[in-house]
Amino acid sequence: MEDDTRTSTAIRCDAALTSVFALLGKRWTGVVIGVLLERPARFAEIARAIPGIAESMLSARLAELKEAGLVTREVLEGPPIASLYRLTPSGEALRPALLSLGEWAQAHLSAGPVGSR
Amino acid sequence: MEDDTRTSTAIRCDAALTSVFALLGKRWTGVVIGVLLERPARFAEIARAIPGIAESMLSARLAELKEAGLVTREVLEGPPIASLYRLTPSGEALRPALLSLGEWAQAHLSAGPVGSR
Repeated sequence: MEDDTRTSTAIRCDAALTSVFALLGKRWTGVVIGVLLERPARFAEIARAIPGIAESMLSARLAELKEAGLVTREVLEGPPIASLYRLTPSGEALRPALLSLGEWAQAHLSAGPVGSR
Repeated sequence: MEDDTRTSTAIRCDAALTSVFALLGKRWTGVVIGVLLERPARFAEIARAIPGIAESMLSARLAELKEAGLVTREVLEGPPIASLYRLTPSGEALRPALLSLGEWAQAHLSAGPVGSR
């Protein structure tokens, strides 16, 4: 065995990052939040804004975000009846971090071969 | 139909966020980057730092990060032979965004009921 324990401390997994990625480390969740950072939106609008997302998947992601306290759902009486989704202050507070991730992507992902793979 | 098109513009999905979450919107990827932000680490160290991750899953995530240009793998001749994983400058550049996400989690997730569900 190498003497890891003498030459270096064990790395601990950051608890805050673990909890954030229990939420954001699911397909589409971050993108849904990104859409709602633009403005509150109806279910159909969110679905249209995200090409390729299945409606059942979008429903599930919105339900998880509601459960986590990041999104509220309001029923618009219509006609037609519609659900309006809106970020809570907690959800809105993700804006600077998501902006920072977006800036990182523009600097480090756009020009690379990743997008085409 | 409601007159969405007259009263409000269609929301567009942010391309940079979409590309970022094509990467980070996978289970464990953000947490693996968080571990490597601490310091370069051997495969076994990363596995130990993330309770619950399967080795095959960690292998797959590290391969994706390497492919995306965020991580390099260096073979340590040993004995025993080991792989040392290290963030590239692109990967390292995620630090401020991940710090911001971690701060958000501490302020908005830790006290809530989310963790216990």
